[in-house]
Amino acid sequence: MSDFPTLDDKQTLEHGSVLAPRFNADGLITAIVQDFESQEILMLAHMNAQALKKTLETGQSHFWSRSRQELWHKGATSGHVQQVREILVDCDQDAVILKVSVDGNPACHTGARSCFFRSVKHDDTGHHLVVSEKSHS
Amino acid sequence: MSDFPTLDDKQTLEHGSVLAPRFNADGLITAIVQDFESQEILMLAHMNAQALKKTLETGQSHFWSRSRQELWHKGATSGHVQQVREILVDCDQDAVILKVSVDGNPACHTGARSCFFRSVKHDDTGHHLVVSEKSHS
Repeated sequence: MSDFPTLDDKQTLEHGSVLAPRFNADGLITAIVQDFESQEILMLAHMNAQALKKTLETGQSHFWSRSRQELWHKGATSGHVQQVREILVDCDQDAVILKVSVDGNPACHTGARSCFFRSVKHDDTGHHLVVSEKSHS
Repeated sequence: MSDFPTLDDKQTLEHGSVLAPRFNADGLITAIVQDFESQEILMLAHMNAQALKKTLETGQSHFWSRSRQELWHKGATSGHVQQVREILVDCDQDAVILKVSVDGNPACHTGARSCFFRSVKHDDTGHHLVVSEKSHS
């Protein structure tokens, strides 16, 4: 299934030039989606080898939907596709950042620009934590 | 162990003001660490309830080390602690962003400022993908 090589040598994995994603037991890596222009983090999702391959081939975000257990072309239904401008991989290659352009469209299924639209704060008593909509920058 | 409530109602989970992290089967949520000033994504890690609680109590990043299976106070050994300026939670509360100040210290164990120091590119032939150090902004 996977067209990607596997690297066992830590030095090569972390400092080499071979793209060798370390898919976990479920066959997934973590994908952070970040706005290419504003640097805002928009969403977190997961990719299997197929989703990563389709993303690389098409230049649009593809994920693996864990709830539906199927390939998920982001925006196929909503029209809110994400154009991938850059892909970064982390040191041990089990996570990527997709830097995307979204043309003003929301990334979250709630309609919010970002899934991370709430901030953790203390309530008025100072004794309890609450989450509340963060002020938009 | 967890001092956090569990919410079963999707509407309340996604739009309410209760912090109710959805820890997975391993008792973990995903934490994205982002530079508060530059917005650069520095690293990806995981938190159990204890790590989240310690982070909230101390204002410094704490994670759960999956490899060592222990609480991990980031910087306890290296001195490169992360001061947490803001915590954002995503729609379904299984991921958080820690916006941190790092005082110029590296976040990656390789010594890089960010774990995401390589970019996926085509090689000179245009037929193969490689990862190479991204140019620093």
